Order: sequence, then C-alpha cells, then structure tokens
Amino acid sequence: MSQAPDFPGLKRRELLAGLGAAAVSGLAAGAEPLQEAQVQAWDISTDVLVAGSGSAGASAAIEARQAGADVLLIESLPHFGGSSAMSAGVVYAGAGTALQRALGVADSVEAMSSFIIGAGGPHPPLDKIQLYCEQSPAHFGWLVAQGVPYAEKLSTAMTVPTDGESLYFSGAERAWPGRDLAVPAPRGHVPVARGMTGGRVLMEALLARLDVLGVVRRAGVAGQRLVLAGDGRALGMEVNMAGERKTIRARRGVVLASGGFIHNREMVRNYAPRLYDCSVPWGNMGDQGMGINMGIAAGAAALRMAQGFAIVPLYPPESVLSGIVVNASGQRFVAEDTYYGVLGDAIAYHQQGRAWLITGEGSHLPPQQDNFPLVAEANTIGDLAVKLDFPRGALQHSVAYYNRHAENGTDPMFHKSAPFLRPVQGPPYRAWNLAVDQAFVPVHTFGGLHTTVDGQVLNSFGEAIPGLYAAGRTAAGLPGAPYIASGLSVGDCTFFGRRAGLAAAAQGASA
Amino acid sequence: MSQAPDFPGLKRRELLAGLGAAAVSGLAAGAEPLQEAQVQAWDISTDVLVAGSGSAGASAAIEARQAGADVLLIESLPHFGGSSAMSAGVVYAGAGTALQRALGVADSVEAMSSFIIGAGGPHPPLDKIQLYCEQSPAHFGWLVAQGVPYAEKLSTAMTVPTDGESLYFSGAERAWPGRDLAVPAPRGHVPVARGMTGGRVLMEALLARLDVLGVVRRAGVAGQRLVLAGDGRALGMEVNMAGERKTIRARRGVVLASGGFIHNREMVRNYAPRLYDCSVPWGNMGDQGMGINMGIAAGAAALRMAQGFAIVPLYPPESVLSGIVVNASGQRFVAEDTYYGVLGDAIAYHQQGRAWLITGEGSHLPPQQDNFPLVAEANTIGDLAVKLDFPRGALQHSVAYYNRHAENGTDPMFHKSAPFLRPVQGPPYRAWNLAVDQAFVPVHTFGGLHTTVDGQVLNSFGEAIPGLYAAGRTAAGLPGAPYIASGLSVGDCTFFGRRAGLAAAAQGASA
Repeated sequence: MSQAPDFPGLKRRELLAGLGAAAVSGLAAGAEPLQEAQVQAWDISTDVLVAGSGSAGASAAIEARQAGADVLLIESLPHFGGSSAMSAGVVYAGAGTALQRALGVADSVEAMSSFIIGAGGPHPPLDKIQLYCEQSPAHFGWLVAQGVPYAEKLSTAMTVPTDGESLYFSGAERAWPGRDLAVPAPRGHVPVARGMTGGRVLMEALLARLDVLGVVRRAGVAGQRLVLAGDGRALGMEVNMAGERKTIRARRGVVLASGGFIHNREMVRNYAPRLYDCSVPWGNMGDQGMGINMGIAAGAAALRMAQGFAIVPLYPPESVLSGIVVNASGQRFVAEDTYYGVLGDAIAYHQQGRAWLITGEGSHLPPQQDNFPLVAEANTIGDLAVKLDFPRGALQHSVAYYNRHAENGTDPMFHKSAPFLRPVQGPPYRAWNLAVDQAFVPVHTFGGLHTTVDGQVLNSFGEAIPGLYAAGRTAAGLPGAPYIASGLSVGDCTFFGRRAGLAAAAQGASA
Repeated sequence: MSQAPDFPGLKRRELLAGLGAAAVSGLAAGAEPLQEAQVQAWDISTDVLVAGSGSAGASAAIEARQAGADVLLIESLPHFGGSSAMSAGVVYAGAGTALQRALGVADSVEAMSSFIIGAGGPHPPLDKIQLYCEQSPAHFGWLVAQGVPYAEKLSTAMTVPTDGESLYFSGAERAWPGRDLAVPAPRGHVPVARGMTGGRVLMEALLARLDVLGVVRRAGVAGQRLVLAGDGRALGMEVNMAGERKTIRARRGVVLASGGFIHNREMVRNYAPRLYDCSVPWGNMGDQGMGINMGIAAGAAALRMAQGFAIVPLYPPESVLSGIVVNASGQRFVAEDTYYGVLGDAIAYHQQGRAWLITGEGSHLPPQQDNFPLVAEANTIGDLAVKLDFPRGALQHSVAYYNRHAENGTDPMFHKSAPFLRPVQGPPYRAWNLAVDQAFVPVHTFGGLHTTVDGQVLNSFGEAIPGLYAAGRTAAGLPGAPYIASGLSVGDCTFFGRRAGLAAAAQGASA
C-alpha cells in the first residue's frame, strides 16, 4: 500500500525527517492562502486535486476520474491509506443493502435514519443523514463494484467480526434507548479480512481502483496553503515536496480530504478540550488538521469542532457488561451494554472523564487489566466505596437497587439487555478505572469544515467557496458526539467523498 | 443612551425596517471580504474603527482614543450599549480591589485564578485568566475612573443586590466544589443602580466618556464585510448605512466588538446545538454573529463555539434551594445551591436539557410558577415518581438518602451548604419542570474569534491577522461552559476590550 514518491527532487530520507519533526512538535506547518498574483508559475497542473489518501480522498478521486477529470491525489505521509487503513474498515450501511437482503435482514430508510437522528446528539445535519440513508444500498453496491470483498455471513457479536463475517451490529441499535427508536438492524458492513484489518482491505481495493482508472497519486507531498483568486475561488495549492515549495493548479477544484486533527495537540486543546486528556489519540499521524486549517484560512466555517469519539472498549468479551458502571457519586448513568462510543461519550463529555466498572465474584472481568486498571478490591461494597472515596452509602444503594431488579431480569433505570443482567455479588468486589486519562481510551476528532451534501465548502455566511470541496474528517459530516456506531465515519468518508469528487469534476475549468 | 444616526442619507425609518427584517429572518447579511483593489475610494477614514457599542467596544474606543488615535465607533442598532446595557452590569473583579479592601474582604490573585480555573471547563485560556486576575484591582480602578458609581456596601445574597450594595458573591464560590478550590470571596462588582439596571449605569458612564474624549460614535451603521489587503491585513470595513454601502478606512486597526450570535438561530443550531432549544435567547438583538462571521470570512479561527450559558434561575429566593434537583433517572446530579449558571450548564449540556425540582410541604416554592411549571403533585414520593415516569423506586431512594443526611446537616453526595439542608417532606410533594425548552432558561453564546491577550485575531495557524482585533463576545475569552459567575462576561468585555483598543491604536498607520 505504500509507494515511494517519485516527484523530482524528492528524497525519502529528508521527507521522513521532516514529517517526524512535525508529528513530534504537534505543529502543523502552513500559513494564510496565497493570492493568485503571488504565484509566478504553476509547477504542476491537474483538473481535480485531492489532498489526502484515506477513504474520503480515494473515493473522491475515483468519482472525479470516472467523470472524466484528470486527478492528482497527494498524501503527506510516505504511505497511502490514511486513518481509514488503520481502522476496521466498517461502513455503516442499511435500508436494505444487498448484503442485508442476502442475509434476510429487514431494514428501511426510516429505521436507519430514525436511529441515527434519535441516538445521536441534538440538531444533527438532517440533509446529510437523509441522503446517506436513502442511497445506502446503492453506495454499498458501489463499494462492491470497486472490488471490496464481503462475505454473506452475519455475526451477532458486538465487535468487529474476525471469523469472516461481513455484517454485524456495529452500534447502539440493540441497547436502550436505541432499540426503542427503530427495529434494530445490523448495519456494520465489514470487508473480509484477517483480524481487525478490514480498513487495509478496503483501502487496498480503493487504491487499486485509482491505478486502474489512471489517477495520479503521490505520497510525501504535504499541502501547505491554498491558492486563491481575488474573488476567493480556490485555484490550487502550495505544497511541500521534500522541503521544496511547489504550486499545483487545480483547474476544476480542490478536494480537502486530509483527515481530522487528533495529532495536532494544540488544536485539540483549543477546539476539543474534553478530548485532550483522553489517553490514546487514534488515527494516522497525518491527522494534523491541515485540511481543516487550510479551509479556515480561506474563510471557511468549521462546525462541531469540540466533538469526537472517546471510546471506552469494555468489551469484548461482552460478558464483562454484567458489571455496572458508576460515576464519582457512585451512581449508574448509562446502559452498560450500549456501544462503547456512547459509553465513552457519557464518561468523557458528561462525567468529567471519570467512571468505574464495578464487578462481583461471579462477574466476568476485563481481560486486559492494563486497559482498565484494577484500583480497589474489598469484601463488601461498603469497603469498596470507602476505598474509592464515594459518598457514603451511595454505591451500596446503586448495587442493591441494580441487584434487586437484575434478579427479576429488569433494569428500570437504564434497561440493560437481559443477557447482561446478573447481580453484582461478592466477595470479592472489584473496581476498575475507566477514567479517560488513565484507562485505554482511543479518541478521534469529528469537527471539520462546513459543507453541503455535495462537499462544497461553505463560508461563514453559508455561501460556497468556489472550487473548494471537503470530505471525511476534514468536513463536519455524519459522525458526532455521541458516536453511535462503528462505520459511520468511514461510511461518511466514502459516501460524501464520492459526492465531493463528482461535484469537483463537474465544474468547468476556472481558468 | 440612544442617539439618532446622522450620517448623510440615513433615514431612521428605513433603518428600523431593515433591522427588523434581519432580526426576524435570523439571517445575518454579509459576505466574503472585499479585496482592497475592489474599493474605488474610501467614504470615511479613521485611525481605529470599533464595531459594536457594548462594554467591549466602548472600552476599546476609550483606550484607543486616549492613546492618541482618531476613533470611530459604529453600532448596527439605533441604540448604543449592546447586551451590556441589558445586563446587570456586574464586573467580576478581585485580588484586592479598592472596594474589596474598603469592605474588609480578603482576596488574592491565587484565590481568584484557582477558582476560575478549577470551577470552569477543561483547558481554559490560562494566559488570559492570569492577566485578568493580576490586573483586576487596577481594572476596577479604571472603571471607577471612567465614572462608574460603586457604593461601599456588601451584600451576602446570591443575586444581584437591589438595595444599593455594590459587592456580592456573584458565582459558585461558596458552593461545592468551588469553596474547596480557594477561600471564597465576593467578586461581583455592581454599579449603584435601581433594580437590575446596573448595565445601563455602566454603559451610560462609558458612553459619556466616549463623548468627553472625542470618540465619534454612530448608530445604525451595520458592518457587512472587512476590506483586506492582498497580504490579508484588515484595512477597513464595508458597512450598511440606511441601505447604502459605504467603506470605512481604518488606518491603524479594526476592533470587532459586535457581541455574540444568540439571535442568529441558524448559527446557534450549527455551532451550539445544545443551546438551540433553550427557551430565552438572551441579549441585544444585535447579537447576530456578524463580527464573528466577518472574522471567520477573513480567515480567523473561532474557538469554543458550542459553549455558552444556559441559566436556570431557581433563586431568588434562595430558600427554594432546600428542594432537590433530579434528572430523568430520579437521581440528584448537582449541588442545588451552586450558581444558577452552573446548574443550567449541568442540565443543558449534561442531562439532555431535562431536570425537575422536587419540593415537600415545608419547602419554599419557586415564586414564579410560570418560570418553572408545576408538573406533578402527589401525597407520596412514590406517587409523584409514577406521575413523572421515573424508574420505579429511584426518586424514593434519592429523597430518603438526601433526607437522612439532611437531618444531620450533611450532604455526602453534593455537599449542599448547611442553610439549604432541609428534608423534603410532604404531603404534598411537588415537581417543578426545569427543562430548558419549557422552563425560563436565558441563554447566551460564548464562542468567538481566537485572540491573543491583546485582542489580536489569530488565524488557524496561530498567526495574527494584521490590523484585526476582537473583544467581548465576538472573541473567545474568559467565559466558558460552565459559566461560573455573573460578571465574568462584562468583566472580560471591559478588560480585554481595553487591551484590544490600546493594541489597535499602537499600530502604525498601514497606508
């Protein structure tokens, strides 16, 4: 999946040295846009320039090329694939995809959109959600057509299947309150892959398509700033190639698909302070916010910049969910069997980053104690609560209340599903630390440029900036806080990436 | 405080008609910046242009003028004073102000900054907080020097004093956990005023100073877009004067002090979705986000755009705080006697906007039932819980737990202060709706342009945009979510407004 850059003058060693320094410092290079008049001559020209080689950029490039445009795709790192290649490659799809139908799964646009709208945060982008759900079966067909392999096997597990299944419940559909919003359907579509390498398989397919179609792709080329015409139109980009500044003319449009900003620590602290302390910034090192910052510098609006996922991966195994999760007041606050992105959101955003898993003698324990450190153990809940410095009597009540109803197979407070309703009984009683800065909590950003459903970047007055498009985590798309299902991010990247590429290619040449 | 605009061609009727339409539509006019080359000739020239006549703009104008600059201050509405004039005029000041010392109040920079940092949200702007606290006594002296009247009288109440006192505990200093962060000190400095009109008194003083100093001020002049030089420097502004576009040259700098965006509903939905449903958008109708949007369009970064205050004003009278506040699970989640901005934050941001006040027979009730509708009444807590559709048994436990400890004068869970610890006993038991969309919940925005301590507006790479300054709610300043004390916003407006005006005036003329 990696390809040595082959632009004149580029030396791989220099490139890596430069990238390493940027990653360590956490500072993205870059500056205000260049004005057209400052550009003496363009070094390179293309119809559509795509910055970023993750699933958003690759999807944009494929569609732009198929629409007849010359396409140049650049990647700042020496390897193609972006954060998508590091992911499990799950695409959240539904409303009756071929795979769902082959496996006898009933689903509809209404069920899918009701879940996404109802389970997510307030005032989501309804236009994007509606389009995404309506066209989901067709989009899944497109992925298949690109050569992404799927198997007609269903998994009922809550995590990415590793036994060759390609469809599973990837989100909070079956947990309360999700299951009351719509009939739950499995919508996580996973490429056939070993272990969790579905993202690699997905990207290998998309990148191979680029080559078949004749998209020119170049690694080690880092966008620095946009070049703008006097009227604000995006004309191209100044890039860094092995320490040399070069200008690339994009006759029809520029697509920013450079990922999020989780590895730009200053941006995370400024924009998403609740994510800053989470222990594991998750994503490709290219997630430095350069695409977002180039867009902001060109006058774009950026939305939902404080939002992201903070995942508290209690499961697998799912059996650990028979314990209860409590806050610093010793109270439960969430259905423990919800999607771990929802659990993490509740802790990171709404409990000041602190929570504990409480288990009893018969409970299943987290298998990797390094992930969720055992911080207290006692023969009674009361003694455990003292060790945790909880308000006196509070944890005792939470456990007694939960146990009393769990024995009857109910959970009046958070409606945990029956399979996980088992009384917490010891000794020993144990407390496992779920604090976002002390447990294993992967975190990623969702904020990005304000775009139309066609990926056009909007300025602060809601007007499109001519020639400028964005997709994936460089744009504010479907994923928000809480993150309600695996696959919404890569699903958004591929779906809206395609639309951005198509829209860019459809523009007449601007000069 | 109002002044008829007197620019040529301006007709007051047209002006009002135009403003009304903008306010109703919720759409801010405006567009991308003008390039210098597009300006044929400047209609008006000044050294420093200040957009907005609230306390930030007025403070900036005073300092710029005193530093020797010609200053033009424009206001989009027909009345001067901005949202500051609608406020109680509280300035959060401490570290030993003259008024604190005269009243025997001990305070320090350390106590003040420890409270602000510890009680507020994660990763606040430490540089601004430090400077604000260090220079707080001097800043209070400046306010006095401008003619703002204060009386050497202390109030111990939790709300803006109305009996001539000028110092009170305006925030969450005495509630848990604030009181554990630093020795509580009263820091709300209030102009002598009738009722809650301290903001009017404050603004009358500052606006009078403008006239004494020779600042030219014009109402009914609405900024539309910035004019930028080819290198991005802010040269001036295009404005709307009674339907005519005019250009104003600012030789030294432009100060954006146009308030927040609470009345631009589309911006609130996009940027601050958790505030969108709150019932009472609070602030002057000029809070349309125009200053923020002009800055974004010029390439500025905007921070903390999702943050604001959502106030749930349970008190006065404070006696109502003897009840308990619970969430949809029937659990307490906050110290009821905290500052009502902190209470509102807990509800709006962390309880999905829903909460109830539970009172008993001997409890004091909210005096204005319209503000917090009575939604259930019953002879037992159990019956009340059924009417509220709470998880069975949960509210009973919360009340029993609270009562048991309240009888002993303690609150192990949220450490409510002793004066408010009274068991909730009926019948009747009553529930009052605190839902942000159904109760009386004033809401205001805090997100704004990224600035240095000197008000210089920063782009997305952390570089200053030459000639561009911002202050007050147009900038991302001290106030955040949670909002921990009345007076932090107007305090920030006046303190950093002054610095922005001074910095703008200190620039050499740019052409």
